[in-house]
Amino acid sequence: MFGICETSLMKSKNFVVGVIGGGQLARMMHPAAISLGIELRVFSESENSSAKSATTKVGDYNQLNQIQEFAKELDALTFDHEHVPEKVLSQLEADGVNVRPGSSALIHAQNKLVMRRKLQSLGLPMPQWKAVSKPSELEEFINQFGPRVVVKTPIGGYDGKGVRVISQSSEVFDWFSAIESFGGELLVEEKINFSRELAILSARNPSGEFRTWPLVQTTQLNGVCAEVIAPAPGNPDVKLAKEIARKVSESLGVIGVLAVEMFETADGKLFINELAMRPHNSGHFSIEGSTTSQFEQHLRAVLDLPLGETKLKNNFAVMLNLLGVDQSNTFVERYKSVMAQVPNTKFHSYEKDARPGRKMGHLTITGDDLEEILKEIRLAHTLLTK
Amino acid sequence: MFGICETSLMKSKNFVVGVIGGGQLARMMHPAAISLGIELRVFSESENSSAKSATTKVGDYNQLNQIQEFAKELDALTFDHEHVPEKVLSQLEADGVNVRPGSSALIHAQNKLVMRRKLQSLGLPMPQWKAVSKPSELEEFINQFGPRVVVKTPIGGYDGKGVRVISQSSEVFDWFSAIESFGGELLVEEKINFSRELAILSARNPSGEFRTWPLVQTTQLNGVCAEVIAPAPGNPDVKLAKEIARKVSESLGVIGVLAVEMFETADGKLFINELAMRPHNSGHFSIEGSTTSQFEQHLRAVLDLPLGETKLKNNFAVMLNLLGVDQSNTFVERYKSVMAQVPNTKFHSYEKDARPGRKMGHLTITGDDLEEILKEIRLAHTLLTK
Repeated sequence: MFGICETSLMKSKNFVVGVIGGGQLARMMHPAAISLGIELRVFSESENSSAKSATTKVGDYNQLNQIQEFAKELDALTFDHEHVPEKVLSQLEADGVNVRPGSSALIHAQNKLVMRRKLQSLGLPMPQWKAVSKPSELEEFINQFGPRVVVKTPIGGYDGKGVRVISQSSEVFDWFSAIESFGGELLVEEKINFSRELAILSARNPSGEFRTWPLVQTTQLNGVCAEVIAPAPGNPDVKLAKEIARKVSESLGVIGVLAVEMFETADGKLFINELAMRPHNSGHFSIEGSTTSQFEQHLRAVLDLPLGETKLKNNFAVMLNLLGVDQSNTFVERYKSVMAQVPNTKFHSYEKDARPGRKMGHLTITGDDLEEILKEIRLAHTLLTK
Repeated sequence: MFGICETSLMKSKNFVVGVIGGGQLARMMHPAAISLGIELRVFSESENSSAKSATTKVGDYNQLNQIQEFAKELDALTFDHEHVPEKVLSQLEADGVNVRPGSSALIHAQNKLVMRRKLQSLGLPMPQWKAVSKPSELEEFINQFGPRVVVKTPIGGYDGKGVRVISQSSEVFDWFSAIESFGGELLVEEKINFSRELAILSARNPSGEFRTWPLVQTTQLNGVCAEVIAPAPGNPDVKLAKEIARKVSESLGVIGVLAVEMFETADGKLFINELAMRPHNSGHFSIEGSTTSQFEQHLRAVLDLPLGETKLKNNFAVMLNLLGVDQSNTFVERYKSVMAQVPNTKFHSYEKDARPGRKMGHLTITGDDLEEILKEIRLAHTLLTK
């Protein structure tokens, strides 16, 4: 999508990638874009978004005409989140915009029922699940797989929102009342008695090249990612995890980064929990930990450039999220003490206003001795948050 | 320099660093600033500078009033190059601007005669040298230390410009004709019969904290840095190199990154060649190679934040400059083949118009096997340039 006359071609030969959403994922694409000489243009919800350094347009991603205007002259259009309506994406594709991942892939990350149906058809390991449209169907599922089950709104949830662990259908009466806004059905899943959570990150480009990063262990706190260890300690079924990632990525036609979150049970079985088709919190370790970060790889993949090496540069990388503790601590004010006491720490600020529980930034430490790293990063975290 | 009322204080609590000069060094500070949540403001010479992603003002750095306007509300003012006139810097300091490094330190990187005189007073190892104001004095030096000597203009030189290797004073007759523009003197130096060139990079903050990176081997091509190997292979005198860095940094009152370029002779002696007080080409390896890059460290140092760990993450890091080969190859058009064939390569574009010999970008590969890395990076370089 370069200009027509030769002069304009000469001046705009660098790649241009547009990102819808101005959150921390778009923010962290910017350094990768700067290195590669890619022009990054972010469509943000506000002037003061986390990705303000690359924001070129502020608007409402639900408005087709605003996105159409933004999408002009892009080599690829990608995302910071999954919330752009499917009908907006389809129209952009009809207009000839390189939407990556495409709407037919992205729908599986937008709608958890579509995802469950697809993964089931692929024979991939999952919790027992059912689409329910009324309380009696939910009660039936609870009787079969309860006493406790997990109910999810098919669309609109993230970071623990839209997910409830319940034992009676009345605990989601409000969702049943608003069920049309979720497409007429809720998703109910068996509550897996897992021993830990794992995630496998991969990337795929339109030429079909596919690469995974090491399988990681994730720890959630109130439904929000809190800690990631790469690679996952112990003896998880790495081969199966990588097969799952490849099968999902190829069968769904994913372009860009794909995260597959999984439960691991005591006997080593894996169950797919969630999918995301964009850089993901479980992959932030790759900025310092891997030869190619998930942000660089995502840009390469959506532009159909060859993918970079994903191996870890040291034996381990550990990432801790900085979740907001109050209305004033943005952590930046306190990072001096971390810099002084833990000089190995890599600090990432998302430049957001402080709010309890909000993802405000993260820390990463890489090295060859996991115990030492964990000691250091937890000290750093304590200095920032306590 | 925060606002006065509390509301304004709350909104502007992030650090703000200004950089004069929109070259690749300012460009590469931007990713580090994004991670740390530092607002970077670049004063560039043109709209389309290499550092355009962070440019907030375009103007002429020789104009005091333009720089004064730019310097308002900065926590620190630093540099992409050494060309800001000393009188501009002194006035900014008198205005209360945190100029870092300060003018009294920076003068040693701006004027090679001031540098030689200072290093001599510190008893540091250097080539024989002399300030000459007329051809007969130069001939006298040639008779004593020739047949070939190195003549340098004290100010205004960089990347081999302002440096000539000569054997007769007539070869710099033009410089003698314009000698007043150089302050009335030229610098002549003994031509050291070196076996290789080395560089030691360090950083110092106003609190006096000081850290060095590993001593590196540099290879120049026509006076321009072409290749850097970290750490320098063989058995260079690392202890002396670090002592030199510390003595220069502390004695001259350097704040931020200091690069000391040195000659090493066959018998292992070191001779100081040049100084730079900013991130330096010999330190680009640190972006991927070290826990803390020179760009992050420079920002931390000028803000008087504690300094980060500088050790290498792997045994080796090698950097090759991408020097322009013609008027059209910006290397970005060709990096697809490098990505496909050498997936370990980290590519850095400076987004400059192509020009033979110009620093257009660089490549870095890190790892534990130097021979393997050198093979890979030279293949990548060939794919881009041939």
